[in-house]
Amino acid sequence: MTSDAALPYDRAATGFRNYWYPALGEREVGRHPRRMILLGEPIAFVRRGAKVYAVQDECPHRGARMSLGKDEFPGTDTLACRFHGWTFDLRNGACVAALTDGPDSPVVGKVRIRTFPTEQRKGIVWVWMGRGAPVPLEEDVPYLLLRDDAMVKYRRRVVYGNWRYHAEGSGGGHFQMLHKDSLALLMVELFAANQGADPYWGQEGPDGEYLIERVGPPVLRGDFPGLGEWPPKRPWRLFRPNMEQALPDPKRFRHGVETITAMRLPGYLRVRNFPLPDAIYFEWYTAIDADHYQYFQASCHWPRNPLQWAWINALYHLWARPVRKGRFNDQDKAMVRDGTDRAKRSGLHAPTPLYRPDSFPLAFREMCNRYARGEGLEDAERQGRGGPVELRLVEAGEG
Amino acid sequence: MTSDAALPYDRAATGFRNYWYPALGEREVGRHPRRMILLGEPIAFVRRGAKVYAVQDECPHRGARMSLGKDEFPGTDTLACRFHGWTFDLRNGACVAALTDGPDSPVVGKVRIRTFPTEQRKGIVWVWMGRGAPVPLEEDVPYLLLRDDAMVKYRRRVVYGNWRYHAEGSGGGHFQMLHKDSLALLMVELFAANQGADPYWGQEGPDGEYLIERVGPPVLRGDFPGLGEWPPKRPWRLFRPNMEQALPDPKRFRHGVETITAMRLPGYLRVRNFPLPDAIYFEWYTAIDADHYQYFQASCHWPRNPLQWAWINALYHLWARPVRKGRFNDQDKAMVRDGTDRAKRSGLHAPTPLYRPDSFPLAFREMCNRYARGEGLEDAERQGRGGPVELRLVEAGEG
Amino acid sequence: MTSDAALPYDRAATGFRNYWYPALGEREVGRHPRRMILLGEPIAFVRRGAKVYAVQDECPHRGARMSLGKDEFPGTDTLACRFHGWTFDLRNGACVAALTDGPDSPVVGKVRIRTFPTEQRKGIVWVWMGRGAPVPLEEDVPYLLLRDDAMVKYRRRVVYGNWRYHAEGSGGGHFQMLHKDSLALLMVELFAANQGADPYWGQEGPDGEYLIERVGPPVLRGDFPGLGEWPPKRPWRLFRPNMEQALPDPKRFRHGVETITAMRLPGYLRVRNFPLPDAIYFEWYTAIDADHYQYFQASCHWPRNPLQWAWINALYHLWARPVRKGRFNDQDKAMVRDGTDRAKRSGLHAPTPLYRPDSFPLAFREMCNRYARGEGLEDAERQGRGGPVELRLVEAGEG
Repeated sequence: MTSDAALPYDRAATGFRNYWYPALGEREVGRHPRRMILLGEPIAFVRRGAKVYAVQDECPHRGARMSLGKDEFPGTDTLACRFHGWTFDLRNGACVAALTDGPDSPVVGKVRIRTFPTEQRKGIVWVWMGRGAPVPLEEDVPYLLLRDDAMVKYRRRVVYGNWRYHAEGSGGGHFQMLHKDSLALLMVELFAANQGADPYWGQEGPDGEYLIERVGPPVLRGDFPGLGEWPPKRPWRLFRPNMEQALPDPKRFRHGVETITAMRLPGYLRVRNFPLPDAIYFEWYTAIDADHYQYFQASCHWPRNPLQWAWINALYHLWARPVRKGRFNDQDKAMVRDGTDRAKRSGLHAPTPLYRPDSFPLAFREMCNRYARGEGLEDAERQGRGGPVELRLVEAGEG
Repeated sequence: MTSDAALPYDRAATGFRNYWYPALGEREVGRHPRRMILLGEPIAFVRRGAKVYAVQDECPHRGARMSLGKDEFPGTDTLACRFHGWTFDLRNGACVAALTDGPDSPVVGKVRIRTFPTEQRKGIVWVWMGRGAPVPLEEDVPYLLLRDDAMVKYRRRVVYGNWRYHAEGSGGGHFQMLHKDSLALLMVELFAANQGADPYWGQEGPDGEYLIERVGPPVLRGDFPGLGEWPPKRPWRLFRPNMEQALPDPKRFRHGVETITAMRLPGYLRVRNFPLPDAIYFEWYTAIDADHYQYFQASCHWPRNPLQWAWINALYHLWARPVRKGRFNDQDKAMVRDGTDRAKRSGLHAPTPLYRPDSFPLAFREMCNRYARGEGLEDAERQGRGGPVELRLVEAGEG
Repeated sequence: MTSDAALPYDRAATGFRNYWYPALGEREVGRHPRRMILLGEPIAFVRRGAKVYAVQDECPHRGARMSLGKDEFPGTDTLACRFHGWTFDLRNGACVAALTDGPDSPVVGKVRIRTFPTEQRKGIVWVWMGRGAPVPLEEDVPYLLLRDDAMVKYRRRVVYGNWRYHAEGSGGGHFQMLHKDSLALLMVELFAANQGADPYWGQEGPDGEYLIERVGPPVLRGDFPGLGEWPPKRPWRLFRPNMEQALPDPKRFRHGVETITAMRLPGYLRVRNFPLPDAIYFEWYTAIDADHYQYFQASCHWPRNPLQWAWINALYHLWARPVRKGRFNDQDKAMVRDGTDRAKRSGLHAPTPLYRPDSFPLAFREMCNRYARGEGLEDAERQGRGGPVELRLVEAGEG
């Protein structure tokens, strides 16, 4: 491992510890445990009454999955291992019985299973993936999503690839090329480029600090020397792209958010006006292992009356969920796969040419290296190591 | 490899050489060879007349599978490789022709393929997996199974996991937890614990020496502090568990066997009164590779007249085979998988807490380290190395 | 890596660079790119007008597959990456636009993608898999196949195994054993052996130099001591084998070719009178990776009039393609698999006994080591290293 490999971004193949992550929906967890792997850790989620618990999915005794365990004492917050009946208090992980050894088993009180702090908010089970005491949930989960008046809709699935390639590729100019033929944008006029300023770390409205991608007004059509105009004009593309950010128009703010895309640690994206107008959208890329991640999408909606509530729900289930959260966002999956496979072939630090919109992935890596919680390097020291040297910006005159 | 790793148990990821193993049924082998992998060795089984032969499933010439070979000279005990016709005498492995080189090929008599000694007993083909001359079959195959009056029924399948986790987990207290909801035990009253003495190496009746798991009378219900009584009483569980071993009752002996479970090298289990009353049951866990094994189940029955013969056959095929040898024993498979996967994640010697019934797996490891045939360590030397140090018994007062 | 491993044959697990290979059919390539992997290199094939281009299937920017790219400027010979619109000139690989960065992107002219020279001949796309300028196509592609009057039929598929085991196993005595029960030879009389002289490097007719397998007249039946006569005589095998090579009969020449099998670098086989009489057949084993190859079969036919054209086409599609190029040649696949798997188990250089017909695979290895283009060793130096030492000829008197 080189000294570069010691930077937090490089080490984060299975994500950053010491953060809250969305795991699954509250309604997906019942009395029978459910197995998930997050950040390389097998975890059993199980409900006891109103509370959802998370414990390591591996009995300390012989390694049997706790997600095969049984609720042998209904009414207590315990889970018994299926193999030999070692029974654990889900609140603190203490072994409170070893059933097949009788009530006087000397094991009781001597063994502990790892528990993961959880919270249930907006229908989602959040889990703290750190070793020490958790930070307040509000430090890691967006304010807009937690607001009492927000209606939150989530969707999750497992995707092949390393989470970092989805995170850093979510900004930086791919929108108008990768998604241009998406059904989700069928009637939206395309544009060529969106030459923004460099991303910055800042705050808008009440939603806390983000790495914000600043974009200028779009260049609707470009004249490319020797090639022609691009993108081609299509009569059925009736609507202007939703890129009014730099215009002096107060309507462009949604709940205090002006910028289209912004990102925060441990790696989630915020998008304004997606997948429906007036919505705020978040997506998490939570590593399962180095080659898979859980793609967790949550959108927040603010219906003002029952009629609007019904209308948003209909639009969501007929259009926004299948076409925008589904087909549209699935177009990114092949790109994440290809980035992952290239890193496997050529190494994480293979030299690569960059272009101006890559200021966003570069800033994302910088954010990881400077700000990742509990990664143990002082900012000053990180500075001295020179940041993500593996990325090479193409300079004029280079061949 | 550490010095611990040099102990026979640690080295036996693909099983112990120098033993007889059951491979498959006599009726499963015909004139066309059949490929199996046992203890990491590809083997071709083939019938010539009444005799079943086993040879290495790899032609010495170019590596083609002998199980693709042809019976080019019917009436002789030979097998010709499909690729170039090198023909081997199945009795001793000598190359007796290289067909595509003509009758005068200089290869004849110069090349040999490895053969494995076989015997056919009770409808099963047994194979000697050692390098030298085999020991008498009777040293490794149970006396009760070989008895003339025994009717033997076998079943075999391939299971994921390392064979050692099935072998050592077959005793030691899992019965009343893992299998408690099995259909096979639907009407049997459950019990909590079965605090036995330590297992011992000894002999009962005529079936030779085994590692015997001694159990006391079961504790039918336990009162677990802070949790309640367990297991719960169910009105449909009408029959007492079959645990009368310690009672002074001569009826408890079956063919000289009193103990419920006992085990012998190279790794097979004997169970009394399973899968039917009055039967004796054996199961072998024969490594295929480090992650798979052949689960070979054989039960012995003693019908005394044709009517009983018909009744046992009916019970066997309607109940004992599908429900007891099938669904019941399949419940162990997930436990073997989990133990295997934990060893892959954490290493064979990751520290693990133990409890009193683990005296059985500890004794199994001790038996492997002390008694495995041909493993080359003197008992005295093994003693000095301290046995299976990776297992840690939980002591009172430990946190 | 030992010094033996430095020989060209040993290093060629993914084939020999610096040769022309057949990739796929012209009609298989359209305006949307098609991905293939050849010699370990992912390649995107794409058509622009009449010309088929091949470029590295990995955008230099972020590694996205170019085979997902788009034809954004119809009428130009360009391909745009699907991720961010980096657009490359297919003729030379130059980056001519970075669409999402606008027409003034500094990347233009600074970045290049690797291109592979291609030629289209006889309906097949040929690709040069070297780094430098290609040699003339005619040096690597058979003269008989390129002839104007040849009608060429091809078939290709992916096979498991290392290409070298198919190449070297294609000669050397397997024919009369492996294929003897093939439907393709149903009515052909079998023969025992074909004791030929050693293969030699030479030229027949106008088709250039090959490694030629010289065979004598076949021994139709052999009397094998202690075994009997072989092969058995069957009344329905009416035709003599097509082995008249050594007879003084001018009819045995087909288009100047007398010998039945011959081989040339980078590893393709020529067969006379296959899969139809009067045809010449070639097959390439083009490595995909160390464990897979593309099996590319091309046969050349010379119909002299439209009626014969129709007859050959009918025979080809009803008989020669499915039975001879298909089932017959598929019999070799298991042998290639077994050779590959043995090398994985035992190493490329595990000692192996050989027999007389192995002079062909030995000569093939020698040809690779002496003549492989651009492999960088002088002949003299190779001589000193002693050739393929891992092969051991069985000597009389050896046990």
